Amino acid sequence: MDKLQQKIRIGMVGGGQGAFIGNVHRIAMRISDQFSLEAACFSADPQRALASAAEIGISPARSYPNYQAMAQAEAARQDGITAVVIVTPNHLHFPIAKCFLEQGIHVICDKPLTLGSAETRELITLSQSLDKHLFVTYNYTGYPMIREARERVRCGDLGEIRIIQVEYSQDWLATALEQSGQKQASWRTDPKQAGAAGCLGDIGVHAFNLAHFVSGMTPIKIAADLHSFVQGRVLDDHAHVFMRYANGARGSLLSSQVAVGKENHLRLQIFGDKGALDWCQEHPNQLHFATLEGATQVLSRARHPISQASRDVSLIPAGHPEGYLEAFAVLYREFAHALAAPVASHAVHSALPAYVDLCFIEACIRSSAQDSAWTALT
Amino acid sequence: MDKLQQKIRIGMVGGGQGAFIGNVHRIAMRISDQFSLEAACFSADPQRALASAAEIGISPARSYPNYQAMAQAEAARQDGITAVVIVTPNHLHFPIAKCFLEQGIHVICDKPLTLGSAETRELITLSQSLDKHLFVTYNYTGYPMIREARERVRCGDLGEIRIIQVEYSQDWLATALEQSGQKQASWRTDPKQAGAAGCLGDIGVHAFNLAHFVSGMTPIKIAADLHSFVQGRVLDDHAHVFMRYANGARGSLLSSQVAVGKENHLRLQIFGDKGALDWCQEHPNQLHFATLEGATQVLSRARHPISQASRDVSLIPAGHPEGYLEAFAVLYREFAHALAAPVASHAVHSALPAYVDLCFIEACIRSSAQDSAWTALT
Amino acid sequence: MDKLQQKIRIGMVGGGQGAFIGNVHRIAMRISDQFSLEAACFSADPQRALASAAEIGISPARSYPNYQAMAQAEAARQDGITAVVIVTPNHLHFPIAKCFLEQGIHVICDKPLTLGSAETRELITLSQSLDKHLFVTYNYTGYPMIREARERVRCGDLGEIRIIQVEYSQDWLATALEQSGQKQASWRTDPKQAGAAGCLGDIGVHAFNLAHFVSGMTPIKIAADLHSFVQGRVLDDHAHVFMRYANGARGSLLSSQVAVGKENHLRLQIFGDKGALDWCQEHPNQLHFATLEGATQVLSRARHPISQASRDVSLIPAGHPEGYLEAFAVLYREFAHALAAPVASHAVHSALPAYVDLCFIEACIRSSAQDSAWTALT
Amino acid sequence: MDKLQQKIRIGMVGGGQGAFIGNVHRIAMRISDQFSLEAACFSADPQRALASAAEIGISPARSYPNYQAMAQAEAARQDGITAVVIVTPNHLHFPIAKCFLEQGIHVICDKPLTLGSAETRELITLSQSLDKHLFVTYNYTGYPMIREARERVRCGDLGEIRIIQVEYSQDWLATALEQSGQKQASWRTDPKQAGAAGCLGDIGVHAFNLAHFVSGMTPIKIAADLHSFVQGRVLDDHAHVFMRYANGARGSLLSSQVAVGKENHLRLQIFGDKGALDWCQEHPNQLHFATLEGATQVLSRARHPISQASRDVSLIPAGHPEGYLEAFAVLYREFAHALAAPVASHAVHSALPAYVDLCFIEACIRSSAQDSAWTALT
Repeated sequence: MDKLQQKIRIGMVGGGQGAFIGNVHRIAMRISDQFSLEAACFSADPQRALASAAEIGISPARSYPNYQAMAQAEAARQDGITAVVIVTPNHLHFPIAKCFLEQGIHVICDKPLTLGSAETRELITLSQSLDKHLFVTYNYTGYPMIREARERVRCGDLGEIRIIQVEYSQDWLATALEQSGQKQASWRTDPKQAGAAGCLGDIGVHAFNLAHFVSGMTPIKIAADLHSFVQGRVLDDHAHVFMRYANGARGSLLSSQVAVGKENHLRLQIFGDKGALDWCQEHPNQLHFATLEGATQVLSRARHPISQASRDVSLIPAGHPEGYLEAFAVLYREFAHALAAPVASHAVHSALPAYVDLCFIEACIRSSAQDSAWTALT
Repeated sequence: MDKLQQKIRIGMVGGGQGAFIGNVHRIAMRISDQFSLEAACFSADPQRALASAAEIGISPARSYPNYQAMAQAEAARQDGITAVVIVTPNHLHFPIAKCFLEQGIHVICDKPLTLGSAETRELITLSQSLDKHLFVTYNYTGYPMIREARERVRCGDLGEIRIIQVEYSQDWLATALEQSGQKQASWRTDPKQAGAAGCLGDIGVHAFNLAHFVSGMTPIKIAADLHSFVQGRVLDDHAHVFMRYANGARGSLLSSQVAVGKENHLRLQIFGDKGALDWCQEHPNQLHFATLEGATQVLSRARHPISQASRDVSLIPAGHPEGYLEAFAVLYREFAHALAAPVASHAVHSALPAYVDLCFIEACIRSSAQDSAWTALT
Repeated sequence: MDKLQQKIRIGMVGGGQGAFIGNVHRIAMRISDQFSLEAACFSADPQRALASAAEIGISPARSYPNYQAMAQAEAARQDGITAVVIVTPNHLHFPIAKCFLEQGIHVICDKPLTLGSAETRELITLSQSLDKHLFVTYNYTGYPMIREARERVRCGDLGEIRIIQVEYSQDWLATALEQSGQKQASWRTDPKQAGAAGCLGDIGVHAFNLAHFVSGMTPIKIAADLHSFVQGRVLDDHAHVFMRYANGARGSLLSSQVAVGKENHLRLQIFGDKGALDWCQEHPNQLHFATLEGATQVLSRARHPISQASRDVSLIPAGHPEGYLEAFAVLYREFAHALAAPVASHAVHSALPAYVDLCFIEACIRSSAQDSAWTALT
Repeated sequence: MDKLQQKIRIGMVGGGQGAFIGNVHRIAMRISDQFSLEAACFSADPQRALASAAEIGISPARSYPNYQAMAQAEAARQDGITAVVIVTPNHLHFPIAKCFLEQGIHVICDKPLTLGSAETRELITLSQSLDKHLFVTYNYTGYPMIREARERVRCGDLGEIRIIQVEYSQDWLATALEQSGQKQASWRTDPKQAGAAGCLGDIGVHAFNLAHFVSGMTPIKIAADLHSFVQGRVLDDHAHVFMRYANGARGSLLSSQVAVGKENHLRLQIFGDKGALDWCQEHPNQLHFATLEGATQVLSRARHPISQASRDVSLIPAGHPEGYLEAFAVLYREFAHALAAPVASHAVHSALPAYVDLCFIEACIRSSAQDSAWTALT
């Protein structure tokens, strides 16, 4: 993918000093080398916002005390930002995205796009009516070997898909960390900030999105069992879901934040009637490909016989491991190209999958409340 | 475990020439060095039975045309067999086991013990009333690192158990192999010979049994989704089950015979609130043990700091891999010691877990027929 | 490989109660199901010999106080043993093998065959003149995936061989275990019993033999650095060797018994100009095969596309791990067939490689003594 | 490590369009967020230099036709560069570094610093006399788990070090790629541009440097066998070296560019009398730590119980893989802090190890020419 001739001016809401994901977005932008971060509203606390701006290198003039002021001022500037990145806790995504879209500024938002599917639908409608982009950073889709996996499915190397197995497990919430005041844990376990799903909304939805991204398939119904292991925790910290697809395929999604020993174990397995794929985020440069007739192959990023689709998003040669940040940067590179392209080509990272993801979360919550009854994905 | 002073005379029903599992039992007995195979009814086809006997080294006089004759004759001989091994297709287990027990001969039976739980209950009652052993060869429980896993659970190294995840996947039935006349595939996909469950009964039950063996826990209710992918196949070739335990723990069992690339992938993961275990049958000499505080440990068979319970069933030093046959032989060694011990010590390999296993299969079939409704394990 | 119609009567010298390798040989024989162990001289200590015989099931009449008596008596019996297994410390291999050969009894000997190459040459000449077998149990050559590796080399899948890298590392002698009186450690570190090489003779020679077995190539010269890390130890506990082959190929052999964390790490890598192989004894059912053009393949025992040569020595289906004992049993199955065949077919497991192995050890010792000078393998 | 208040102005010589390593340095600088790239001499071809400058975003006024002009002009500007990065073929490192140092500009140079040790000594003397930094980008030392390894050695967790085993293997030169005109292959196999060593100088030296970085030990003598497998190739494409250390430790270094199936296989194993480490660049977020007494631990980046020294150079949480570029960025972060610090603290990334590395290469060439004679490292 060629480099754009001009960097895109961008702003950020949330993600100040000490925030994990805000920093990740900034590094990803720098790796992509297509953005210039020029304005920000790093914190609701003005002191903290300014300090962050100083550290991150935003001029005080463009460090705003609130997102509304930022949207207005930037829209009014001739050299104002083209797009904004939203990396606040979940419950603020909707009003912020809406505000910037209405000011004619493209939006890049961390997942989940909103707390509920209705709000996401509203944002999508709004963005379409205004011809503005609405990107959601499902960062795991940026891994080159995930692109390879998708390409293999598309080419029919797996045959008819029968089984989709996806798991995303961590252990950092195995204890009542939120009761210690740890910030990440606090908002993620608080329904007001995180939404109606805990673990499922935080990481399970990544797994669901990735399965969709690679297979191109969306389940028609699901049956879910959400559970909270840690005493006093309101939201689920463990979720297990059966999925059924229109072609008869079966799926399962397991997501846990209390699985001791699991760091960031996102794994996707897809089995067709001819071949099968196995990928694990913690060793992202390999993809295992099995067939009925031959030996299992260990496909390696940027090495023969990797597809062009995968090579296009590789930065460096085989054997030089790329990681989480490089995958994140792939999305930013693609966002930049979409932002620089005419409106008609807005297809790649639309928010539509994010809408399906929220419908999935909502269906899981309904199913779990109804004794794991099979529930349609509308 | 010391060697017995005298070998135990044993017979076999089923498992003649070309049979996979009959041969496995015989090798396991030889490794254990505690049995002398002296009588057999290797096949319903007399020609084949005799040929098998000749090859395997059973005298023609003790190669019987049918199991009834064998049971009677052996019971009558002063040097008759002490125990019989049943390795026929599933539907014959019950009548054969019953017949030998009634003749006062101990029974070692391949899993599942019978087609239904009622028959298993009947056999258990019968064996108890006659003070005879009724062993079922859940061979995966014989692996030294499975014993280590059980020991770690028992010692509380995992804390309170929260999650049990077990999977048993293969790919040999990914195509309609049974339509080619392949014998193993034919009887396993035929409800009359295999019972009401296909994949779940053939391999899923091993996974269920293993989870129970290690955790000591039995689910109180389950929800299942059984499916058959291959056209024309009546029994399930893919099964997925949610499980709930009395202490609130969640479990899942996945079993498939159409998972391309999986050979004999039996994997058990157990997560407690303090530690977690991960074991995979295809690399059985290692056990991964994780804790919240420290690094994940790769425990290795027969190497420090392995427990005595595990060392007791190890044959050779660390680094010299033991496999499937050695694990199988562990059961035979334990059977031999139980057979040589006074009646009161009959506890180790009783058929009780086999009864629970059949209740589990039946509950899964009921649940799946009722749209995956949660179903009690009675 | 078909089963023989009659079991071969065999005897054992060494390997009584508590001996590791004697027990391994006996289990391997039982797995092979081709031998009947009928006579023994288990120990130089008559008490211990008798106790071992009783435990192992040898009649007191055929439990001999010394090997000379055994050879004579068994040769004289009509139902005397056909072959003897020698599993004593190394220094006794030569006189015992010689004695049995002279009595017309075939010999199966643990490696190394003798302390020096001259004695091995003498035994080979003797066995040839008497038309008797002289087998050496290089057990690692019995692994099915080693047979696959050899087949791949033979078929030219690797092209011209360029690099042979072999390593055999353990850690059980990382401390001065021999000073604690541990029997295995004591004789292996005593030049009188073990010979002039320590680690190199005990395990390095297995690695050398395996490289030869798979590649079919013998180095023309070597340069070695032998070292002893543990204070007070006379023989090497760590050895490193460069190797050069006639076709210009380069090799290296690393062998250590002080490599903390290594249990029984025997690994063989062979690189050609077209393909490469990688096999590790601790996960013996897999073989990695790489090519310049395609993805690395994980070949799996008994699974497509494994060669017939490898399948012939597999006992059970793919995914059911075979281990150390099964590989050992493969040799015994092959010995049995050779023993049952006409003399002309004595080629398979001749002692010739064992001779080369001893020449290699001697060359390494000479090279190391001369400041690692390149030394010809004569 | 805190962020500097002001970015450091930097220039680059070499590394224009299409160059692998120049791009890597630029991404690493952007990840570190401490540098501003403001001047360059990207190519000897002026057309190409300008095109690169335009693409990379250097103003035409500071895109220079040759390095001499660049050094002079930048030294004269008030806003001139503080440091220069040299990423040309090896033979140009020396004159360029010298030129910039003499103009009072700090130097960051890709490895090897020069073609020979004498030139490196000259540069070091020069940089010291001028109080200028002379950094060499041994990028593999930037991996957090390499820092963990070094910390473990320092803390004595391994005890007295006995064995150092390091390997760096690739396969991209398994064929005569240089004859196809491929640029990377051409200069790396050309003694005039690459120096007297091929594979050893290109990658073997990384392995040597890494072993030193982690162990803190330098061999006192070495014995080497360099070889060229591909017809027509002058420089070595395969190298094998024995190493001996002052404390009696033994080392080996294997480096190959014809090892089919190896992508960028840099692996370091260090064995002490108490513990051992094993790290592999292709899975850089894990470090295996073994002891005699306990189970092998899989240490994971940024997860308990990782040392502060390692955490300091981690960017993101455990389970979110970091890769090659992040490790490279660690060096740039450290360079930036050294550049911003008073002169006295110039210790961290001095060029002294680079001097030892060149002495090592020269000793290997001498040894190999003298039939692998043991050769002192002076």
